[in-house]
Amino acid sequence: MEAAGRSLIHMEIGEPDFPTPPPVVEAGIRALREGHTHYTPALGLASLREAISGFYQERYGVAVAPSRIVITPGASGALQLVLALLINPGDQVLLTDPGYPCNRHLVRLAGGEAVAIAVSAESDFQPTAEQVAAAWTARTAAVLLASPANPTGTLMAPAVMQAIFTETAQRQGCMIVDEIYHGLVYQQASPTALALSDQVFVVNSFSKYFGMTGWRLGWLVVPEGYAPHVDKLSQNLFLAASTPAQYAALAAFSAETIAILDERRREFAQRRDYLVAALRDLGFAVPVVPGGAFYVYADCRRFSEDSQAFAAALLDKAGVAVTPGTDFGHNQPQRFLRFAYTTSLDNLHEGVRRLRGFLG
Amino acid sequence: MEAAGRSLIHMEIGEPDFPTPPPVVEAGIRALREGHTHYTPALGLASLREAISGFYQERYGVAVAPSRIVITPGASGALQLVLALLINPGDQVLLTDPGYPCNRHLVRLAGGEAVAIAVSAESDFQPTAEQVAAAWTARTAAVLLASPANPTGTLMAPAVMQAIFTETAQRQGCMIVDEIYHGLVYQQASPTALALSDQVFVVNSFSKYFGMTGWRLGWLVVPEGYAPHVDKLSQNLFLAASTPAQYAALAAFSAETIAILDERRREFAQRRDYLVAALRDLGFAVPVVPGGAFYVYADCRRFSEDSQAFAAALLDKAGVAVTPGTDFGHNQPQRFLRFAYTTSLDNLHEGVRRLRGFLG
Repeated sequence: MEAAGRSLIHMEIGEPDFPTPPPVVEAGIRALREGHTHYTPALGLASLREAISGFYQERYGVAVAPSRIVITPGASGALQLVLALLINPGDQVLLTDPGYPCNRHLVRLAGGEAVAIAVSAESDFQPTAEQVAAAWTARTAAVLLASPANPTGTLMAPAVMQAIFTETAQRQGCMIVDEIYHGLVYQQASPTALALSDQVFVVNSFSKYFGMTGWRLGWLVVPEGYAPHVDKLSQNLFLAASTPAQYAALAAFSAETIAILDERRREFAQRRDYLVAALRDLGFAVPVVPGGAFYVYADCRRFSEDSQAFAAALLDKAGVAVTPGTDFGHNQPQRFLRFAYTTSLDNLHEGVRRLRGFLG
Repeated sequence: MEAAGRSLIHMEIGEPDFPTPPPVVEAGIRALREGHTHYTPALGLASLREAISGFYQERYGVAVAPSRIVITPGASGALQLVLALLINPGDQVLLTDPGYPCNRHLVRLAGGEAVAIAVSAESDFQPTAEQVAAAWTARTAAVLLASPANPTGTLMAPAVMQAIFTETAQRQGCMIVDEIYHGLVYQQASPTALALSDQVFVVNSFSKYFGMTGWRLGWLVVPEGYAPHVDKLSQNLFLAASTPAQYAALAAFSAETIAILDERRREFAQRRDYLVAALRDLGFAVPVVPGGAFYVYADCRRFSEDSQAFAAALLDKAGVAVTPGTDFGHNQPQRFLRFAYTTSLDNLHEGVRRLRGFLG
């Protein structure tokens, strides 16, 4: 449509509109100039593993030894690794519905079976310990949580996560927590799951908060003793993560970069506040104010019982691109649209103006 | 050992000692300066897919439509993709033994079963059509070939590959050819398997010939019609390959870069010629002169019946690091060592001097 000259407002895009922070780009350029173009160890550069360990100490006050931190090709790579590590053929993994759609496919590609837990606004679109306990079977190997979550932007309360960890540990299962939207949190504190226990598996990424999507760099935190297994898996699956990206990421924790990221976080918060209010004003229901990430999961029942057709109409008639709930699972997806605020406030204003015109 | 001050000659390393060619590095730096740090499409940059298509036309005289070319995070990513695409749980994949060790693990991670074909010097360490036919069962989905091969450096004769393709096609199976060492070929022409048929799957990489190991960039060629399936798989597994790496690789096919790569290829050829002669002179048997890659697979029976212990002794007593055959499979691995000539002629001279001193 854009190639044909149509103007579109993009509220469907799952990556920050900001470019990589300049200090990180400069570190990447420096690495290239210095010839850092060979493989790194499969577990990643020691200096980067140490820098992430330092970040956990500084930001969260949690001690995470560098030996527990594995550098991966994006969070995708971290998810692949942790699933390959924990899943035997036929094992079940509990996931939320709605949730990030790749997760259930990755579980299947790893030989496992994804079992959906339907989550709703009543529990902030997050699973409860009771739901996890009820869904657990003899074949369940792990539960995969996300806080903040995609597509809902909601956080899991620490007490709930603690309760789920207890249920999981009692059953000799594993808890994996996707923290790739950590740092993009707007109202409440968001402790890392690593504060709960050193037996939690955490997936994180330089993509969202650190603005390094295209570099494909993330990390996985595993309990002590798992790294040698992850090392072998990583060699087989990836050899290693990108070397220039790893050197660039060494600059991601500098005061200069963090100042840029904080400024961006404030910008995201403004966009969120504007968009949630505007969508409610238009007649969408936003049952939970999303505490993080850059998504609003809005109930469109007042306008349509078919979110996919509705999203197509918004694109076609209003020139506004959003993502229908059907992309995120099978739990009442026809009721919801995901609005991403990965575009400027000006664009959001224009998008809302167009929606108002279309909805009348 | 090096940290403790010991001098080692490295003949175990599976990546070129040369840095990425300067024009490619400069293109990467330019991409970063221009802000190319967001995701690309999962199938890769259209311009890079077109450039690879042009390279097939120019170098091999083979027409490969850009729509059949998928950019991947290294050849590792391409192998993961093609195995996820072709393997259903329990399917068998025929591989050579000796062979690249990750392949059989990747087959298993994809839910398949790796079935080894023992190859020997009599057939240039490559499987024959008869062996493929004999190993094929009702559960066989594909055969994975490599030319040039790791650890042996040998090429497969086009007539043999044609015969294997015929056997495979007759059984409705797929033929996957690993061409990651293409370009590093020293005496004979090496046509791409894509010249045989547009139904062959080919894995390639910017790592070895193009000197981009640490960037983690490769590609997969699939038959027409497969790309939409690969697109979905790639989104799930990787999201996309590294964006700066893709922009950098656009400079990999320039005349300036190719001139640098040709010079390096001549250097590798000199090293190979020296090393094969020197190893034979020392008393190793090199039953097939390796036509490509940067490996010599040498029979060490005259010195030892246990290549692993022998490699450990060479490291400990002579300060020469090599890889024992046991890293590459179960087919008489105790008889062989892999020598990599990914180090300078001066270092190779010193390594041979040390070997001579040790072997007496």
